[in-house]
Amino acid sequence: MSEKTIKIGIVGFGTVGSGVAKILLEDADHIEARTGIKLELAKVVDIDTKKARPVKLPDGILTDDLNSLLNDKDIQIGIELIGGTTIAKDIQLKMLAAGKDVITANKALLAEHGNELYAAAHKADRCIAFEASCAGGIPIISAIRTGLAANRIKAIYGILNGTCNYILSNMTKKDESFKAALKQAQNKGYAEADPTLDINGQDSAHKLAILSSIAFSCEILPGDIFVEGIENIDIVDIRYGREMGYTLKLLAIGQKTDDGKIFLRVHPSFISGDNALARVDGPFNAVSIFGHAVGQTMFYGRGAGMMPTASAVVADIIEVAMGNSKKLFKHLSLEPKNKVAGIIGKIDELVSRFYIKLRVSDKPGVFAQICTILANHEISLSGVLQHEEHNSHNIVPAIVITHLTQQKKNTAALADLAKLEIVKEKPVCIRIVDIPEDSD
Amino acid sequence: MSEKTIKIGIVGFGTVGSGVAKILLEDADHIEARTGIKLELAKVVDIDTKKARPVKLPDGILTDDLNSLLNDKDIQIGIELIGGTTIAKDIQLKMLAAGKDVITANKALLAEHGNELYAAAHKADRCIAFEASCAGGIPIISAIRTGLAANRIKAIYGILNGTCNYILSNMTKKDESFKAALKQAQNKGYAEADPTLDINGQDSAHKLAILSSIAFSCEILPGDIFVEGIENIDIVDIRYGREMGYTLKLLAIGQKTDDGKIFLRVHPSFISGDNALARVDGPFNAVSIFGHAVGQTMFYGRGAGMMPTASAVVADIIEVAMGNSKKLFKHLSLEPKNKVAGIIGKIDELVSRFYIKLRVSDKPGVFAQICTILANHEISLSGVLQHEEHNSHNIVPAIVITHLTQQKKNTAALADLAKLEIVKEKPVCIRIVDIPEDSD
Repeated sequence: MSEKTIKIGIVGFGTVGSGVAKILLEDADHIEARTGIKLELAKVVDIDTKKARPVKLPDGILTDDLNSLLNDKDIQIGIELIGGTTIAKDIQLKMLAAGKDVITANKALLAEHGNELYAAAHKADRCIAFEASCAGGIPIISAIRTGLAANRIKAIYGILNGTCNYILSNMTKKDESFKAALKQAQNKGYAEADPTLDINGQDSAHKLAILSSIAFSCEILPGDIFVEGIENIDIVDIRYGREMGYTLKLLAIGQKTDDGKIFLRVHPSFISGDNALARVDGPFNAVSIFGHAVGQTMFYGRGAGMMPTASAVVADIIEVAMGNSKKLFKHLSLEPKNKVAGIIGKIDELVSRFYIKLRVSDKPGVFAQICTILANHEISLSGVLQHEEHNSHNIVPAIVITHLTQQKKNTAALADLAKLEIVKEKPVCIRIVDIPEDSD
Repeated sequence: MSEKTIKIGIVGFGTVGSGVAKILLEDADHIEARTGIKLELAKVVDIDTKKARPVKLPDGILTDDLNSLLNDKDIQIGIELIGGTTIAKDIQLKMLAAGKDVITANKALLAEHGNELYAAAHKADRCIAFEASCAGGIPIISAIRTGLAANRIKAIYGILNGTCNYILSNMTKKDESFKAALKQAQNKGYAEADPTLDINGQDSAHKLAILSSIAFSCEILPGDIFVEGIENIDIVDIRYGREMGYTLKLLAIGQKTDDGKIFLRVHPSFISGDNALARVDGPFNAVSIFGHAVGQTMFYGRGAGMMPTASAVVADIIEVAMGNSKKLFKHLSLEPKNKVAGIIGKIDELVSRFYIKLRVSDKPGVFAQICTILANHEISLSGVLQHEEHNSHNIVPAIVITHLTQQKKNTAALADLAKLEIVKEKPVCIRIVDIPEDSD
């Protein structure tokens, strides 16, 4: 039955490593029946060989000696699952140099050093597969590179960080404060003890760098992406947004304009409550891809966790083992940074709508002053909201929704608004993202 | 740059054929850059070579002579886009015999005669690719066969017919009658002049047969699938369902139980209004796949139309041209019908919840009679709804929602209910489908 046996080595016996080992040990027969390839787990390398794990390896597989994997000529595929950008990079380069194809879930490493690693793989005539680096179990890399390969990709809108989505969902649905929602995410295991990289948007930016680089075929670095996190989101603004029909999500957005400019950004975004992405709750991820032929698509699933991420790693193992990944990887040629620099749009050039909340003195003429400043910056309003609020300071919230305007005009207007005597706190500004909906 | 040129012939120059030709003519460079393969449209065969089409072919490509395609040894890929199950089958077999790989969007043909065609392809050492046969532009076949290849698939829940979804969406959102919504679907071009195959559920059953046969690796024929269409859906039941938090969708469902039984069905289904599939509106399709490792996933996009379907056909062209489809196709081995028969669950064995609407005389003791009959069949209730309604006939609706019960018990109870003197019309029964939600 089996055409060939492919031996596999894993570096990093943590959560995802355990999930991959579990599938390889339990489902090799099932996979062989569908693909003709027998997958064999040959080595698992980890500095800690004593700790209890959720999967029991056969004797002789677990080791703390990386060289025993590198030097085993029968191991064709090396899987790096330790994370980080230093040792992990070294290990990937060593595996490539030792003639192994590499599979990884390491988004930070690929986002920062993808082109260097891809070049090393091309030089070694090997491939790097990285389905698990973005959106966990959702086969989104495969969708962009094969399922939608006939398309010129116009835009990507992604909910790519389950921690942030869990926090924002709970704030929205349970009316919890950011702090309480974060605490709950930590209790549930959806947020690290130090959640910085998740909540400041950097993790989403790493994933967007990878997705947009393959979608737009050019090298995109995290530094090319405008990033704002969710750490300063106030439940009050989620409530006001909801009143106006908006749901708050941390979106990672990559757009290619008709004249070839690429805009890349990660920031809290008010989207229509009717949009499919607004209904992605809890720790789930979802990515909406717009292609010139296919139109609107959306891919939804778990963005993290032992088995979902392992599902993506094993999908890569199968594709690498069948030789399909290598053929496609050979043509993974990203326009290098120096050629791309000119087409990356600056955030100041972005055209968007904005939600602006001011806390102002409750007295006559307040809106006149606000509107005059906005008019001075050529910003017109599409909506206004002011609630009665009784407090001892005589300060009330005033909310305006702008029509489409340039970011730089909005930034200048916010600076002028902040200087008004009637404006008592730093203005809050959240971008409104109008995801195209061709529902008919 | 290009490793090889692949020549392509299309049979059927209708809507989808025009879309495929358009992409091949306009985007060959873009595809070559990403894959190293130059795609060349060599022949388009259609009995009508005069009609105006939305794409202009270069001279010498359009012909009404199928043999000019079959006999051209340089054409490696033949695309059958004429539909139907007779001539189309003959053409596919001829293309395979002539040494060409076959790509098709023909769900009816594959659902009815897939195994015969696959066998012919295996014998000719060619492959058949059929991404476009299910859910239009959504790369769902590729997701099941590659992106989720590490998974044992447990269930598929699909909105696979855009016509039905458009009709049910409009009934739900605009409170339109079935007839009015169908008329509008026809005006919009979403429904054929004769919409029978769409609204009676057969089109969805064809697609479910294909999806579940690859998901569960066995031959599944349309006749294995229990099918009920939407042609008798009354807007009144959609309204009552909504009151109780349900949205009506035509779902195609394939489930594999832990003891290996496969249940296959297409029928109007009340699903929770909170489920992602409840929010799939208009002509869109969506498929939720549950895998043992990945958990819940959902894939969303346009299920029909010139360019979305062409997107899927061209994705297949690329995969076939790269040689990837053939490797996977080689292992497309579906357990044949005679071996599968025993594991296909009968609809009578199905365990479900049910929405039952009776139109009854408005007098004392009515609910007691209904409840007694249900109790006699060991059916317990999870909800009851009775509205005041004033009409000259003194007949009112009584709605009950059952707990989980076997279909056969429910069928027997309905027969007994229909015999009651107080029950004035044939009972309406709609299955409630509780799609698992692991949102946390």
